[in-house]
This record gives sequence, structure tokens and C-alpha cells, in this order.
Amino acid sequence: MAAPSPGYSITLRVETPANFTATSELAAAVASAGASITALDVTESHHDRLVVDVSCDTSDAEHGEQVRAALDALEGVAVRKLSDRTFLMHLGGKLEVVPKVPLRNRDDLSRAYTPGVARVCKAIAENPADARRLTVKRNTVAVVTDGSAVLGLGNIGPAAALPVMEGKAALFKQFAGVDAWPVCLDTQDTEEIISIVKALAPVYGGVNLEDIAAPRCFEIELRLREELDIPVFHDDQHGTAIVTLAALQNALKVVNKKIEDVRIVVAGVGAAGNAIIQLLRAQGALNIVACGRNGAIHRGETYTDPHRAWLAGNTNPENFSGTLHEAVAGADVFIGVSGPNLLGEEQVASMADDAIVFAMANPDPEVDPAIAARHAAVVATGRSDFPNQINNVLAFPGFFRGLLDAGTAEITDEMLVAAATAIARRVSDEELNPSFIIPSVFDPHVAADVASAVVNAAPNR
Amino acid sequence: MAAPSPGYSITLRVETPANFTATSELAAAVASAGASITALDVTESHHDRLVVDVSCDTSDAEHGEQVRAALDALEGVAVRKLSDRTFLMHLGGKLEVVPKVPLRNRDDLSRAYTPGVARVCKAIAENPADARRLTVKRNTVAVVTDGSAVLGLGNIGPAAALPVMEGKAALFKQFAGVDAWPVCLDTQDTEEIISIVKALAPVYGGVNLEDIAAPRCFEIELRLREELDIPVFHDDQHGTAIVTLAALQNALKVVNKKIEDVRIVVAGVGAAGNAIIQLLRAQGALNIVACGRNGAIHRGETYTDPHRAWLAGNTNPENFSGTLHEAVAGADVFIGVSGPNLLGEEQVASMADDAIVFAMANPDPEVDPAIAARHAAVVATGRSDFPNQINNVLAFPGFFRGLLDAGTAEITDEMLVAAATAIARRVSDEELNPSFIIPSVFDPHVAADVASAVVNAAPNR
Repeated sequence: MAAPSPGYSITLRVETPANFTATSELAAAVASAGASITALDVTESHHDRLVVDVSCDTSDAEHGEQVRAALDALEGVAVRKLSDRTFLMHLGGKLEVVPKVPLRNRDDLSRAYTPGVARVCKAIAENPADARRLTVKRNTVAVVTDGSAVLGLGNIGPAAALPVMEGKAALFKQFAGVDAWPVCLDTQDTEEIISIVKALAPVYGGVNLEDIAAPRCFEIELRLREELDIPVFHDDQHGTAIVTLAALQNALKVVNKKIEDVRIVVAGVGAAGNAIIQLLRAQGALNIVACGRNGAIHRGETYTDPHRAWLAGNTNPENFSGTLHEAVAGADVFIGVSGPNLLGEEQVASMADDAIVFAMANPDPEVDPAIAARHAAVVATGRSDFPNQINNVLAFPGFFRGLLDAGTAEITDEMLVAAATAIARRVSDEELNPSFIIPSVFDPHVAADVASAVVNAAPNR
Repeated sequence: MAAPSPGYSITLRVETPANFTATSELAAAVASAGASITALDVTESHHDRLVVDVSCDTSDAEHGEQVRAALDALEGVAVRKLSDRTFLMHLGGKLEVVPKVPLRNRDDLSRAYTPGVARVCKAIAENPADARRLTVKRNTVAVVTDGSAVLGLGNIGPAAALPVMEGKAALFKQFAGVDAWPVCLDTQDTEEIISIVKALAPVYGGVNLEDIAAPRCFEIELRLREELDIPVFHDDQHGTAIVTLAALQNALKVVNKKIEDVRIVVAGVGAAGNAIIQLLRAQGALNIVACGRNGAIHRGETYTDPHRAWLAGNTNPENFSGTLHEAVAGADVFIGVSGPNLLGEEQVASMADDAIVFAMANPDPEVDPAIAARHAAVVATGRSDFPNQINNVLAFPGFFRGLLDAGTAEITDEMLVAAATAIARRVSDEELNPSFIIPSVFDPHVAADVASAVVNAAPNR
């Protein structure tokens, strides 16, 4: 069973006899059922009984029911209600749209709405660039998905993707003051998605593509970049690549190797894998082997998919062919953005000395990080319950803050590398060690540092 | 010159000698330039001089410059800066997107975002109806325009329309707690607009169409109502019709006439005119004459436009043919939703005794309300600087509040009439008089009353 996690936190409302040991017995029962108690609040007290809210982290829904049963089994105790705190948090959604201007009286109304607003409209009609000054456009990002590749859940559609997009929008505001709005499209047609996003563009200063399946996501991003005058960023590609590069910069420092010297194996050639490889090359990596389901991509084979064909021509200088397991032998760095449990202990042991393992598949990594740590010098995952979490939240809020502040439509490799370097530098030389190669997502300086790195690296400044 | 209005409010930063009469001289100069002073703040005081912010309402931009010149002409006085308060209010836009949930630590993040959010996504994928419970959908309205008929400004396009849509969204939140988001589409193709709004629907609980030119707006509304499972409301049609009917209910009470007995002339057969006529019929009006640019619409003529053909068959029971001026003679009610200065004093004088005149063209009404009031018993306009302002703000926030609360996709005539009646009833018998037939837009009870009327009138409740 997985460790209890706040993602599976529950609150049980419990009726218990009013005696001296009642609450401690509840706590003991929760603990012996394997859950971590996080709060215990007496909400009602009567002569003969208490009503207590017991909050605890569990492993999954089934575990929650086991905790309920454990409490119900105590003498005189009855569980009235089990509430899932994650669902409670989602009731009514996670965002609201709030006026920034007062609307208390007729004068306010005359300025914010008719008749005064007409002059602002006219000013924009006469000088379209004024939209950035006089509307929300300047600070607003569309978080666009078609619901085709949501987290590890796959093609669950636009309505079911909305909680993720709302969460993303909340993070944009919280970490970088960016106003982001979810755009969950009820279509998975590439051309239709492109034309819809183009039609929506007047309101937005940037587009963040999210959880759109490969290879559709590549075409959508490419075309929108060509056809729009606002920046377009696919977070599953570039956000992941930025944070991966940041972690790798620091991991290489820990093991005292140089990026141009190491052999890097990337497992997974979808959206994230492609973007990571591009960015590693931009940073100077020379020896990258990309592995798909059929092993290493190499020049000996012909690929119909243009992205694999590009990889065959531009990675794997030794033209290695073979399985992922064979590729990993002797490698300095493993970067996994594919699926669970691809490597065992033996494969990690076969890597070069001072190996670096980034097993980023979510929720289950390519290799158990505890096992990987027996042989690798640095291990990172996408999970919050191990050290070195590689989390896009470190990149996208500050990156868009920088894009909006620079007023640029272009996103260059230099800007991505600058963002990665800014994140890596948040870990000082004193802090740097194999268990701390990447700052916390709650480091209050990351977003501002990333934003200013992006502004400085933006073209034509 | 028009009267000074808060829509043209300016602030002048003025440097003046520090003497006893300095500020009163400024105030006198502003007044003699014909502007209304609203505030006077000393922002800096030095031994020999003061810096004063003088705020005043002016008539237009040119008048503002005249005020500046009048101040500059005073001895020792220099205007440093003239700021337009309407533009100042619009800097950076009028909306922000704010998280409703705390994101202070890793536990919050685990619930609002990954990994906890995945369970919420799965729940919605398994039971799509849960989207209304667990996302913003339940409380969110898209304010959709193509920028083709914005205020009185015409086809100024989607970017220039954004300030109006932002204002609308701000009013939705302020008056009814509805989260509304501007959707300004960079296309004016009917089929494309329909398919885009359908694709956007997963995020929204309702669609408010806004400032889309006729006849395109009719087709878009009709098709979206057929093809979507959320309510679709065109405010320029139905919002206007609701508030017009509310005002007419009370105006008829003032003059002691019944809706089934009066002859009503409607000038303007665009979006608003059509919707008003439909709703007046639903309320029992029998004798309506609709006038377009070529006079009364009647059965003697053949109309290619389906809306005019419908009007020919379903209004004008006396089959009157002639000009608007001829139609108005002897009429009990004139409702104008067309253009400026269509009627003179003579035409209003030709109406029946105790005539009712609603001259709603904006910003310049069909007849000067001061002139109309010489002959008509009740006069209303769309303007805030005359009594009886017929303003959609009275209808749309509460109407959508009701639609969202009822969870209905259908909008019936009964719901529109119920909303109108709820607005009319906010004017008590004691308050009712020819200058007060409609409540103030700041009446704090209107939106809630409209919402509950809509909920009660909704089908299947």
C-alpha cells in the first residue's frame, strides 16, 4: 500500500461517548489503521457524548473506508459522515472572476460601462495596440486543452479536464499574478482547435497549451506560433523541459560532470521527451539516445513519424541500436518521461559511476526511486513524497509573467535555457546536495527570477 | 453642448501660488468653463505654492481642453497634467481571475492540483453531471461577441469590443455573484461562431450573446439553443425586452390603461425590436405596429427577410400602412429602439391622450425627452441623465443567476415575463409616478427578485 498522502485526505465526523480517553482512542484507532492523523476537532459537546471531526491522510479511497470501519468498531463510537477533503475543496470550482474596479454608484457605472466605455472602445478601434493597455489582454493567458492527454488519465475529454485547468489557472495567479482562464474544447480536431484558438486570441496575451495528445500538440503549437501575434507555449513540452534542464544543471554540478561529456538516455518520445531533447541540445548536450517502445531511435531505421525521423538524424551520434535496457548500460544520465516500472535495480546498477536518474512518470515512476538511490548518485521524480520533485509549477507561472512583461510573441531556446538556469540558481552552492538539486515549488523567489530571466533573454529588447 | 457627465470626468493636476484664495479661484474657473467640479485635493503644499488635483465632469474631450485652458489662463497657475478618469479606470483591464481555494503549502497543492485533482477528474469522466458540482461550470457565463454591433459604435471588431464585455462581466459579478468571462471572437461567420461556442461550452453554465449584428444574432441564438444543453440568451434582444416590458407594466398602471387595449408602435425591427414585440405579445398586447425604415410592416407587402415576414403576419391587425409619423398618430405607446431624432414635438402631440413614450436609442433618443414630456404622460429613455432609465443591468445579472440556480437550459416566454414583472414590482404603489416607473439599477433587491422569479417560472421544477 502507498504511503498516506494529503491528496487522499478525509474528514470523519464521529460521535463518541464523553469520557476522558475518547479522543485518544479515536487517534489510536486511526493510527493503527495506517492513516496519518492531521487534525482532531471537538465540534459538539454534550453531557454524555462528543461529536469529533477527525481529519487524516489515507492512501486511497479503500483505505478511507478501512479507517471508517476501524472507528465504527470502537465501543459506543459511530461515524456519521466521511468527507473527502479533495472533493470538498472542489465544490463550486476553484476560480472566480472579480471586478478590479469599483461599481458602487452611477458615476462608477458611467466610467466602467456605458456611456464612458465607448470612448475606450473607440480608442482601441483606432489604435489596436491600446488593447494591451486598456483591457485584460495584457495580463491574461488562455489555458487550452482538448482533454486528450490529461495527467496520467488519458483521453477523458474536456469537461473532466476542467479541474486540472482550473488548478493551473489558480497557480498562475498565486505564483505570478497572471490571470489565466480555462479553455476546455469539445473537439479533438487539429484544424478546428487551431482556428478556435485563433478566434479567441483578442482577449489573451498568451496561450498555454495543456494536456493535448502527441503528435497533434506539435502541429497545433507550430501553426499557432506562425499564425498568432501572442506567445504560444505547450507546458507539457517546454515547461517540463525547463524544469528538467534546471535539475540536470544542478545534478551535473553535484557529480562534477559536464553536459557535453555525458551520455544521456531519454525514455519516452512524446511531447515531453521531444522538448527535453531539444533543450538539452540547446544547452550543449552532444550524446543523447532517445528510446521509444521499440528501443533506441537510430539512423538504421526509417521512421514515418517526422519527429522520430528528426530524432534519428539529430541524436544518437554513435548510432546505437538496441533496447532501453541495453541503452542504459554505461549511461551517465537517465531521463524518463514514459511509463511506470521500465527499469529494475540491475539496470540502474549497469549505469556509469555517479549516475543521474530522473524517473518522472506520474504517479508511478520508471523505477522505484528508493531502489535507484542504491546505485545512482542523484535521483529525482515527479512526486512530492520523494526528494527532488521535478514540477512544472517552478516554470510556467514565471515564464508567462516574463512573456507578458516583455510583450513578446516569440519563444526562443535562449529564453527556455535562461528560465532553467534561473531555477537552478535558486539552489545556492551551500544548499546543493544529491537530495536538493531543485528549489521548492513554494520558494517565493522562483517565479520572479524566471520572469526576469525571460525578459532579459527575449529578442529585440 | 451636452451636459457635463461622469463618463467624461477628468482630473487636472495644477500648480498654483500658495495663497488664501488659490483653491477657490480654481473652482471658480472650472465652473465658469461650464464643468462640474467633483473633487479638489491638495496633494502637495510648499511655502510658495500648492499642487492641487481638480476633478470635474466635462461634456467631451474638447470641453476638457477648454477647462485646462481656463486654468492655465489664471495668473501664476500651471496645469501639469490632464488625466481622463475613464481611461485611468481601464488601465490593465477591469477583471481578474482569482483562486477560491488556498494554495499556501504542499497539502493544499496536493488537493487543488496533482495528485488529488486526478480523482475529481475521474469522478467527472464517470459522471459528467458532476461537472456542475465540482468545477466553475455551475456559476460561469460566457459573454460572447463578434464585435459587429457594439453599443452605438457599430462593427468595431472583437478587440475594441472587449472593454464592454469586461464591463458586462464585472456587472454580472457585482449584481448577482455570477462569474462571467469575455469571449471576443475574431470571426463574423455565423457557422464558425456557432461551432466555436459549442466547443467552448464545457466550461460554462450559460451563454450571454452580446452586441452581435442582426440578422446573424437570430440564427446564432436559435441554433445554439437547439444544439447546447446550457441556456443561451441574447441580451440585446431579451434583456432589453424584459426591462422594456417592466417599464411598460408600470407606465400603463400610471395612465390606467390595459396592455390588451392599447395601440403600440415599435420603431426599429432589429434584434431589440423583434424581441420586444414577441414579449409584448406574450404579455397580452394585441395591437402592435412595427415600423422599419420604410414605415409600418403590413400584410400588403412581401418581405424576403423571415423576421419581417413573421411580423407582417403576426402584428398590425388593422393592416395599417404608412410612415412612422402616420403610425404614431393616435397611438397609446411609442417604443423606439432605432436611431436618433425620428420624432418631433408634433408627432408626440398627435398621439392618444395619456401617451407613453419610450425613446431608447443610445446615446441620442428618437425624440428629445424634454420635448416629449410636454405632451406624453410618461417618458422613458436609455440614458442615465433623465428619469426612467431603461437599462439592461436590471435584467441580465438576476436572470442568469436564476438560470444557473434552476440548472435549466430552456428560456421560455413565461420566464421573461416573470423577470419583467419582478422588476416592475420593485416599484411600490407609493413610489409609482410618471417619473419613477422603473427601479434604480442600484436597487439592491432587483437581481435577487429577478432570480427567484426565473427559478419559479422555469419548466420542470
